[in-house]
Amino acid sequence: MTRHFHRDLQNLHEQILSLSAEVEEMIDSAGRALCARDHQEIAALADADCQVDDHEVSIEEECLKMLALHQPVAVDLRRIATVMKINNDLERVGDLAVNISERAKELHECPNFPLPPKIEQMVIIALEMVRGALNAFVEFDATAGYEICRRDDEVDQLNREVIQELIELMQQRPDLIKPAMHCFSAARHFERIADHATNIAEDVIYLVCGEIVRHHMKDQHVHHI
Amino acid sequence: MTRHFHRDLQNLHEQILSLSAEVEEMIDSAGRALCARDHQEIAALADADCQVDDHEVSIEEECLKMLALHQPVAVDLRRIATVMKINNDLERVGDLAVNISERAKELHECPNFPLPPKIEQMVIIALEMVRGALNAFVEFDATAGYEICRRDDEVDQLNREVIQELIELMQQRPDLIKPAMHCFSAARHFERIADHATNIAEDVIYLVCGEIVRHHMKDQHVHHI
Repeated sequence: MTRHFHRDLQNLHEQILSLSAEVEEMIDSAGRALCARDHQEIAALADADCQVDDHEVSIEEECLKMLALHQPVAVDLRRIATVMKINNDLERVGDLAVNISERAKELHECPNFPLPPKIEQMVIIALEMVRGALNAFVEFDATAGYEICRRDDEVDQLNREVIQELIELMQQRPDLIKPAMHCFSAARHFERIADHATNIAEDVIYLVCGEIVRHHMKDQHVHHI
Repeated sequence: MTRHFHRDLQNLHEQILSLSAEVEEMIDSAGRALCARDHQEIAALADADCQVDDHEVSIEEECLKMLALHQPVAVDLRRIATVMKINNDLERVGDLAVNISERAKELHECPNFPLPPKIEQMVIIALEMVRGALNAFVEFDATAGYEICRRDDEVDQLNREVIQELIELMQQRPDLIKPAMHCFSAARHFERIADHATNIAEDVIYLVCGEIVRHHMKDQHVHHI
């Protein structure tokens, strides 16, 4: 491929990394809204989501422009196709962050609700996974991709433990059923963010190794409630 | 574009319609497993999912091959890019159907659980939406696309009503909290299937009209618990 293609590809990597940084910031804000009961974060998240949506559209346009202009083949074509998929995953992660902040808003109505502390661990790992998946992509690093797929198990396990805690809480305190359902949804959304990071990591492994892991590792995506 | 391109595009349409038919069958089976408590459906769903996964991979390969071989531009390029996105959505719908059947399996342990009848309506509409979105794509029909986006509101409303019923049930019958959580997850998965159909419909509208609706209509995707 030409020097122009590589310059444009470099530019595309910068754009997708910048989108990822915005989305990571949203995950972090959603985590603070939920765990630190930070009201400030909620309004900011809706604004951030609009920005993410605009960037997603412009990255997709950029990918189509590069396909039409440079007509890449082989691995260069796959790189562009992978950016399109990552772009899509990141946009959905942004939506999930907004949904989490909506759940947080409901939970703020119930200030004494005992939030399971493991949710905070889920937030941290989900955030690291998204960041790691994007790094694996720009570094063309399949080993890092496998490491992210492995971490998805940790998040799934934490999610199962959170659900168990919430079920016990609801059985003991029927007055807390409604906030517990909001909390359950929020935890599930973090677990889905980790799934999107895993999708990205699997795409990176395929890009680098030509090995399709995304369906072999699927058992990890099956939920337990 | 050449005659060869149009022949390959026709072939690609047939492949994506055939993938959609498999996925629609999975939604229907998941609905029967849940609502008619049909044990037979559950094992069949896992097998169907493997087949869907294989087809998704081969459709993606076919899209990349067409991009490399025909180097399409303008609307032809967008058509291929849209198939790649639809392919991705359909594969995730297949995963959701498997997850629903897992929830159904848990609910079979509790044969007297009063399943909210509105879930059956959700199944029917979600199925019609997926089928309609694919038809809108092959017919290049933006009006049909808008109709699908509108139906997403119906599913969201039904989902809210189901959640409300489940919360009341759990408050009255704490012994049913665990199965009610499985039921809540199953309803949510059907609601997400409708979201995927909406994503596809929005992509069709963009393909046909160049109008980006996917973020303007986003309020419809925000969940209520």
